[in-house]
Amino acid sequence: MAVQTELTNNPSTVDLGPAAALSCRECGERFELGPLFACASCFGPLEVAYDLPSGSPDELRKRIEAGPDNIWRYAPLLPVPSDVADKPNLNPGFTKLVKADNLARELGVTGGLFVKDDSGNPTHSFKDRVVAIAVEAARAFGFTTLSCSSTGNLAGAVGAAAARAGLRSCVFIPHDLEQGKVVMAAVYGGELVGIEGNYDDVNRFCSELIGDPLGEGWGFVNVNLRPYYGEGSKTLAYEICEQLGWRLPDQLVIPIASGSQLTKIDKGLQELIKLGLVEDRPYKIFGAQAEGCSPVSAAFKAGHDVVRPQKPNTIAKSLAIGNPADGPYVLDIARRTGGAVEDVDDEQIVDAIKLLARTEGIFAETAGGVTVGVTKKLIEAGLLDPTLTTVVLNTGDGLKTLDAVAATSQATATIRPSLDAFRAAGLATS
Amino acid sequence: MAVQTELTNNPSTVDLGPAAALSCRECGERFELGPLFACASCFGPLEVAYDLPSGSPDELRKRIEAGPDNIWRYAPLLPVPSDVADKPNLNPGFTKLVKADNLARELGVTGGLFVKDDSGNPTHSFKDRVVAIAVEAARAFGFTTLSCSSTGNLAGAVGAAAARAGLRSCVFIPHDLEQGKVVMAAVYGGELVGIEGNYDDVNRFCSELIGDPLGEGWGFVNVNLRPYYGEGSKTLAYEICEQLGWRLPDQLVIPIASGSQLTKIDKGLQELIKLGLVEDRPYKIFGAQAEGCSPVSAAFKAGHDVVRPQKPNTIAKSLAIGNPADGPYVLDIARRTGGAVEDVDDEQIVDAIKLLARTEGIFAETAGGVTVGVTKKLIEAGLLDPTLTTVVLNTGDGLKTLDAVAATSQATATIRPSLDAFRAAGLATS
Repeated sequence: MAVQTELTNNPSTVDLGPAAALSCRECGERFELGPLFACASCFGPLEVAYDLPSGSPDELRKRIEAGPDNIWRYAPLLPVPSDVADKPNLNPGFTKLVKADNLARELGVTGGLFVKDDSGNPTHSFKDRVVAIAVEAARAFGFTTLSCSSTGNLAGAVGAAAARAGLRSCVFIPHDLEQGKVVMAAVYGGELVGIEGNYDDVNRFCSELIGDPLGEGWGFVNVNLRPYYGEGSKTLAYEICEQLGWRLPDQLVIPIASGSQLTKIDKGLQELIKLGLVEDRPYKIFGAQAEGCSPVSAAFKAGHDVVRPQKPNTIAKSLAIGNPADGPYVLDIARRTGGAVEDVDDEQIVDAIKLLARTEGIFAETAGGVTVGVTKKLIEAGLLDPTLTTVVLNTGDGLKTLDAVAATSQATATIRPSLDAFRAAGLATS
Repeated sequence: MAVQTELTNNPSTVDLGPAAALSCRECGERFELGPLFACASCFGPLEVAYDLPSGSPDELRKRIEAGPDNIWRYAPLLPVPSDVADKPNLNPGFTKLVKADNLARELGVTGGLFVKDDSGNPTHSFKDRVVAIAVEAARAFGFTTLSCSSTGNLAGAVGAAAARAGLRSCVFIPHDLEQGKVVMAAVYGGELVGIEGNYDDVNRFCSELIGDPLGEGWGFVNVNLRPYYGEGSKTLAYEICEQLGWRLPDQLVIPIASGSQLTKIDKGLQELIKLGLVEDRPYKIFGAQAEGCSPVSAAFKAGHDVVRPQKPNTIAKSLAIGNPADGPYVLDIARRTGGAVEDVDDEQIVDAIKLLARTEGIFAETAGGVTVGVTKKLIEAGLLDPTLTTVVLNTGDGLKTLDAVAATSQATATIRPSLDAFRAAGLATS
């Protein structure tokens, strides 16, 4: 048996659609679907293995295109029951793939530059995708409380998703979080518990709680539901390819926190190729980090296979994971596809947020500043080919990280309400 | 001639699709399409008159359904050129119509309750709809600077839209606006001018500027482009009916600021009936205000036809227009359709924001608290029939009005990271 929490439902009655089993990413051992989070043999991470749909690619494409305008159009490729769209869920996804022609001109990209803008999700970050899948897993396993450890964004996504789904939520955060983030997480009416300690203390506490009878019936989206949760990021790959007209992009620039998102996007692209939904041609995956938390970038540049943990110190707090669990897999994917991992400093992040806002009217979270800034740097370094189709991810919303740009985003002028004062300010065009 | 600013383009070359003319809402006089904002004969407000498409309803429905997932699917019913979807624009709209079953249970609604959630727009409010239309009018008239007077939200919407469209923007705000709103407006890189005075002073200054050579080539979305701008709100009516399966709702609850949105939604519903896209059956329109700025509600209750201005004092700042231009038209529509206008106080607004968040995972702006609060009040008063299909509008995002809920949205408990402390907090389920 694998490391497992108590199951309320019988595994044999669990309907998660095409999900067939959990398999260990390291040793390949397979386990029955359940709230497992580590391989019993080697403690490697588990991921969902599928019986992917049969039938012609044309049929499957049509079936997907006839589906709802959210991630459930891809239900045949996700660990969710086939009637998932009928259940109460926030229904995230199918966010805009913006053709960023103005930004392309500034960066000298001629092959087509696109921003996948996940700020359009219900709570305005990609977290809604992963949490939506975790909600269905929680339902399947009979969990009645949805939980997580969080530094803010995930807490809000879990609170909102649980409210819609009719689940209880109880979410754990460091007690000294910024007031704005506390409010965003608390407004959905679930239990919000401040833990006296830092994020590592919160995490440790959650692991203890899972192993204790006190945590019975609790689904922690990023712990005992993690294998399912992570699959939500595959939908970014599906949407990007469908929105490009069922075509792989040549290059993708993806932010790295734990690295899970990047590895799942690669998994999604591989599935589309395997199913014949897109033509099999090379693509390059680039990872983006903040210099103040760049363990994967450092390992990539040093040619290492292992990632040496760092103590984060960056304004890109949603990416500030100093010991990223999927770091080695990210290195592998970047090298296998001919991509790279790069980082930018806080000043470059702010500049990139403002560049994206000024050119495309998209106000990104700091994580979006990281990907846009890294894209610029990679082009300048000759690592990213500006003549190829490139997709850059914006995974969050600038409204949640206003502080990052506050100092440099102010009124151009302050004047008396008179035409003379306006003329003197030099802003008229005639 | 009508009150008009200098035209750069020749009116005869202006292509705004099915828009045929401007007509005065009071005296019916018609004017050539142009940046006009008041009738030359009677100074009444102007609105767009159309040559609506011919052909069978089925054909038109199919044409719309085959269009893009944004407001441009309704281009045949809007003052925009037929190739509008190919131009750089933020492409707002087609936001979620959420079937709010949890909220329905709490309010005792059995006929189907829906929340039209416009927080999913690019800058997270319905303003993106109206500004998108104004951008196309600005292009048609050869304007090169996009402008507005604003207390915050509109400034951001204009800045973002202008950035994408490749237009210069110069936006005017009261100099003492909250820092967060200044940042949200300034981040898009346009000119942001603080005016020493209140919102009325900003408005007066903008009117002066339009009449002066200094304002040549400037399109003010809510002044000289207002007749076009306002039409953007019709898309809310189109989307609601299409998302209900090309069916009119029985009841709609709509917030009132200037009242323009409510009147344009009614206009949109009437167009759908006229075109045969929906069955002609009765619907009721309810207007929602904050008690601290309730001139239309007060007039409705007193049985008056005119609206007596008020000095606003409410947390629902996006609705705080004390002298609403379209107030009399709103009264007319509410009475004609058998609806009503009601208001709720600040405490009820906060409670309603939290009720919507707790039941549906939707974090609304204060304006959303007003519509949900008014819906509850109207049901309790027997004015809104809970057995009929009801659509409630949420026009903005709670992230922009965090202060409204900050005092009452806090952590449930703060504990040491130990199971004993957690047990003592009484939050475990077993």
